[in-house]
Amino acid sequence: MSQAAIDPVAIPIGYDDILAAADRIAPWIHRTPVLTSRTIDDRAGGRVFLKCENFQRVGAFKFRGAVNALLQLDESGRRTGVVTHSSGNHAQALALAGKLLGVPVTVVMPRTAPAVKRQATEGYGARVVACEPTQAAREAAVAAEIDQHGLTLIHPFNDWNVIAGQGTTALELLDQAGPLDMIVAPVGGGGLLSGTAIATRGKAPVTRVVGAEPDRADDARRSLESGRIEPSNDPQTIADGLRTSLGHRPFSVISAHVDRIVTASEAEILDAMRIIWERVKIVMEPSSAVVVAPLWNGQLDIKGLRVGVILSGGNVDLEPLFQSLTQKFL
Amino acid sequence: MSQAAIDPVAIPIGYDDILAAADRIAPWIHRTPVLTSRTIDDRAGGRVFLKCENFQRVGAFKFRGAVNALLQLDESGRRTGVVTHSSGNHAQALALAGKLLGVPVTVVMPRTAPAVKRQATEGYGARVVACEPTQAAREAAVAAEIDQHGLTLIHPFNDWNVIAGQGTTALELLDQAGPLDMIVAPVGGGGLLSGTAIATRGKAPVTRVVGAEPDRADDARRSLESGRIEPSNDPQTIADGLRTSLGHRPFSVISAHVDRIVTASEAEILDAMRIIWERVKIVMEPSSAVVVAPLWNGQLDIKGLRVGVILSGGNVDLEPLFQSLTQKFL
Repeated sequence: MSQAAIDPVAIPIGYDDILAAADRIAPWIHRTPVLTSRTIDDRAGGRVFLKCENFQRVGAFKFRGAVNALLQLDESGRRTGVVTHSSGNHAQALALAGKLLGVPVTVVMPRTAPAVKRQATEGYGARVVACEPTQAAREAAVAAEIDQHGLTLIHPFNDWNVIAGQGTTALELLDQAGPLDMIVAPVGGGGLLSGTAIATRGKAPVTRVVGAEPDRADDARRSLESGRIEPSNDPQTIADGLRTSLGHRPFSVISAHVDRIVTASEAEILDAMRIIWERVKIVMEPSSAVVVAPLWNGQLDIKGLRVGVILSGGNVDLEPLFQSLTQKFL
Repeated sequence: MSQAAIDPVAIPIGYDDILAAADRIAPWIHRTPVLTSRTIDDRAGGRVFLKCENFQRVGAFKFRGAVNALLQLDESGRRTGVVTHSSGNHAQALALAGKLLGVPVTVVMPRTAPAVKRQATEGYGARVVACEPTQAAREAAVAAEIDQHGLTLIHPFNDWNVIAGQGTTALELLDQAGPLDMIVAPVGGGGLLSGTAIATRGKAPVTRVVGAEPDRADDARRSLESGRIEPSNDPQTIADGLRTSLGHRPFSVISAHVDRIVTASEAEILDAMRIIWERVKIVMEPSSAVVVAPLWNGQLDIKGLRVGVILSGGNVDLEPLFQSLTQKFL
């Protein structure tokens, strides 16, 4: 978190690393579709291209970075295995990547994480270690795994190989949609947005790169304004994937290469989510709606522009819906 | 409903009509994607191709038949306008088709239909006429519209032009997926299944054509067994699009060209729907899950086969889900 972290020279990866990651992970990932919607275009006043990472394996872009990181381990690292901390999409992404590539995966997860998350991660063959739900306990548990078993840490976003993997999403989007005036990506820890920025600067230098986050977790906006990382403190937002604060590596990339951070209120996030579900007919998580809401909440003016937005994933709890259907019909 | 209706010679349309319909409607419809899913393949034991008509305009295949029927009106018929009865996808499909093609549309709808359905239909510029929720009242209201205003009836499924339009779905599926051992389509009134059968017999004669319906609305299965139309009496199934009984024109086609009818219980429909939402990440209505459930409920053995299934639409009430999210976060 030192000031040095905002110095662009501290960024050891570039466009070539995104291209190399794309080749490396191609046999393992899905090339996800880009969808368009008249309803969204009409409301936003521009042409909007939805890059649908909800169709990615494990239902989120996180699989790209996880595979890219595991494929760059040396023989001994692959044999010994990796550790991470996550109760979200990164946990499942790393677990599946490890299963496919034969790398043992350990995931440190707060003991308060929903049972379904733990089961899904274990279902891919990962070992789950429960810890107390504090950052100190989590860091201690990860350190203990590294010390005792010699595991390699694959951080969910503060890892250059993970960032390079996430950047392949924007690469595909630019291939599929053609020239874009702007790309909007969500920002939580910053892995996706920083990868997107490096990819876009390399492939389409005139395309603006914008990050989007919830009003209630606007640490990226505040950090860019102050020039140093300003963490959010346990933000309560429906966009659960974006509660994390910016990592210092992503912060360094975002400071150098991202044009702007925009935000959305909880009501705006829910409204955008509903429009996408009802009109685009895809299952998409609240964190993905955060990039769509600013197209019409007054923060971005995209009239006449071609805009790519990255929908990060589709992992959302459908229990309330199916409970209601079951009660009604069974 | 006479016995003559099961005589294949009574069918005045063939494969050429499906091809002509495909050309005719191409500028107006979406060529919807075909998705695949490892989860579904693993569970079914074959290779399954999901033809996603939830991505069609108005969110359902019904738009194909509606456009095809309107494009075949003569000048005077287009000017005077059309009438139909529906509280479902056909109402909105015909309303949008009429709006795009400049044909006035009147929809007779039971006064008990949900307000959102009425508003959606009116939102596309159609005139909605409410009637008592009985078949007699509905038929009287339609007859009155025809008598008084000279409107042309566009029946939701008992109409050869509508059937030809719906058949274009299977044509695309066969183009996109390559050779298939079997195509499964849902059957309610029978427009989609009969169009599918004519298209498939013409384009891929060895491909088996299977209809799927709810256990609780198994009139197509019973009708094919007895050789005459055996209507369902107000069946209570979550698959609301399939509560309708078979029309006599579709029945004639289905008798001649459909290999089998399979069924699914309410619990099996809900289970299949949940798997598609959670794993394929698309919003899809219960009527579409009815074609997936028989792939693993013991009715169809598709081990080692390539099977296309037509997911008919994505119009489902999301209110319970968004209510729960709103309560939790706003």
